[in-house]
Amino acid sequence: MKISDVGEFGIIRMIQERLSVSPENVVVGIGDDGAVYRTTPGREQVAVIDTMVEGEHFIIHRTATWHAVGYKAVAANLSDLAAMGAVPTQAVVSTALAPTMEVSEVLAMYDGMQDVCRTYGVNIIGGDTVMAKESAVITVTALGEVEAGRALLRSGAKAGDIVAVSHTLGDAGAGLDVLLSGTAGYESLVRAHQYPVPQIQLGRILAAHHGGCANDISDGIAGEANEIAKASHADLVLYAESIPVSAALRQWCAQEKKDVFHYVLQGGEDYELIFTLPPETFSAVRRQIPNLTPIGRVCAGTGRVRWVQDGKESIVPPHGWTHF
Amino acid sequence: MKISDVGEFGIIRMIQERLSVSPENVVVGIGDDGAVYRTTPGREQVAVIDTMVEGEHFIIHRTATWHAVGYKAVAANLSDLAAMGAVPTQAVVSTALAPTMEVSEVLAMYDGMQDVCRTYGVNIIGGDTVMAKESAVITVTALGEVEAGRALLRSGAKAGDIVAVSHTLGDAGAGLDVLLSGTAGYESLVRAHQYPVPQIQLGRILAAHHGGCANDISDGIAGEANEIAKASHADLVLYAESIPVSAALRQWCAQEKKDVFHYVLQGGEDYELIFTLPPETFSAVRRQIPNLTPIGRVCAGTGRVRWVQDGKESIVPPHGWTHF
Repeated sequence: MKISDVGEFGIIRMIQERLSVSPENVVVGIGDDGAVYRTTPGREQVAVIDTMVEGEHFIIHRTATWHAVGYKAVAANLSDLAAMGAVPTQAVVSTALAPTMEVSEVLAMYDGMQDVCRTYGVNIIGGDTVMAKESAVITVTALGEVEAGRALLRSGAKAGDIVAVSHTLGDAGAGLDVLLSGTAGYESLVRAHQYPVPQIQLGRILAAHHGGCANDISDGIAGEANEIAKASHADLVLYAESIPVSAALRQWCAQEKKDVFHYVLQGGEDYELIFTLPPETFSAVRRQIPNLTPIGRVCAGTGRVRWVQDGKESIVPPHGWTHF
Repeated sequence: MKISDVGEFGIIRMIQERLSVSPENVVVGIGDDGAVYRTTPGREQVAVIDTMVEGEHFIIHRTATWHAVGYKAVAANLSDLAAMGAVPTQAVVSTALAPTMEVSEVLAMYDGMQDVCRTYGVNIIGGDTVMAKESAVITVTALGEVEAGRALLRSGAKAGDIVAVSHTLGDAGAGLDVLLSGTAGYESLVRAHQYPVPQIQLGRILAAHHGGCANDISDGIAGEANEIAKASHADLVLYAESIPVSAALRQWCAQEKKDVFHYVLQGGEDYELIFTLPPETFSAVRRQIPNLTPIGRVCAGTGRVRWVQDGKESIVPPHGWTHF
């Protein structure tokens, strides 16, 4: 059964039935001209928006299932909220869908959205569903809250801070290559690409410590570290030997004769956090959150990223993924 | 010069430079992982989202300029906020653009967004720009505020209320036909289609009177009136002779041998408000806002729309525009 069989209003009704929520802070959910919700006194609001285009950000049945597309479309937004130190609250979703798309595929995509929203306590309170020419386009706006004055800004890195990251880097980029090559196995890399984990808890703890800055790693650390260095008017010195890399990534790179640091620096969509903190604060945070790794230092400088590998230093250009 | 000549980061930088805002309630605007803003104590927040697809919602150079596309993408969202009684505050914008699009066209589109935002005091605080396959897809999320408990809901119509609309109906749908037919003239109809006016002030006054319900007319009053009737569990009786229609629409219909009520009932994108109010409240509101016309009454019933024309009554099915 295709979308064109049930019509626009039919598919909207099916989506609505799956997304019903009735939490305390939602006054009016899906079904009116707009959604109405309450905010928490003393907190500032954070808004993020992110779009995924079929054929550009995913190739269906090859790099993603529809469930994974829905999950990731929301998770990418929650990752941006994590990088601001915000707790996610609400989401609104717009999908442009081809009439030839199977209804079961549409519902699987919304199930993926609902799954990640349930995990992080987010309500899908509104949406729009329109006809696309051929490729699906999914746009999610996520809203969150952070204590006033506590948002984690890119401009917050200070000389003397430790630069650290969560978990391991490069897995998602390698997972994409695993899928594109049609190789079996490497499930952890594939999962890192398809089902990223937004670092909400880490972001909240960083905001509570009010000590530094954060960026989520959507385009590889080359770009993200450069954004922090530029916004903070300081240099970031990163040590290649300190970068946390998974055994699976090392194995994939050995098998394919690829450079691990290619994936670390320019691999996309890890959705880990890169952040800076004074050393004593970093120690305190690491007692609360496992799997954090110091990878360098902030130094007085002109806004560059300096990469130290095998005792030699080079400058990392800000070439993350560029889509055009 | 095309997008592919300046690259993704180049076009994002150009867009950012045009959208800089620094009002009191915005803490962090464009340029970090997310935007941070403050809300007003005692008010509830309203979120809306709306998407326009090239080739589906507009045909460039035929039914719209890029400036008009940007203007309307935002105005359609502001109209939804008006229908909730909210004052618009912030917007986030996502565009999926083909690399072959001219940079000047992209900037014209964002100028259109900026123009309508400036008129209504809205800040574009964040966005996303990604590559589309071929057609442009523009998604806008607009945020607004309304005094707690005052949002205008579709379920608020009560037996005895007057049903009224703002300005004239059917102009936008006829304007689209003027453009599609390549006919010269009929500037007021064309303008109604390309540059709709969100009825923010009317929505705010209705919320202040706290008396009824509202819907914005995006798909013709057949659909919108049915939504109110269904949500309110009441019948709406509408009088054809009372519907306000412009002289230009009458002239176009006479020339083209078309039915005025086709455009009124099913014509899309007027973005006027249809609302209900007790008679005494309606009189008070009409003293504050000109160009409001009573077109019918709310009666006890089962959620139907009854249409009275030439002394005969018929039931209006809820067939607004359906996109699939």
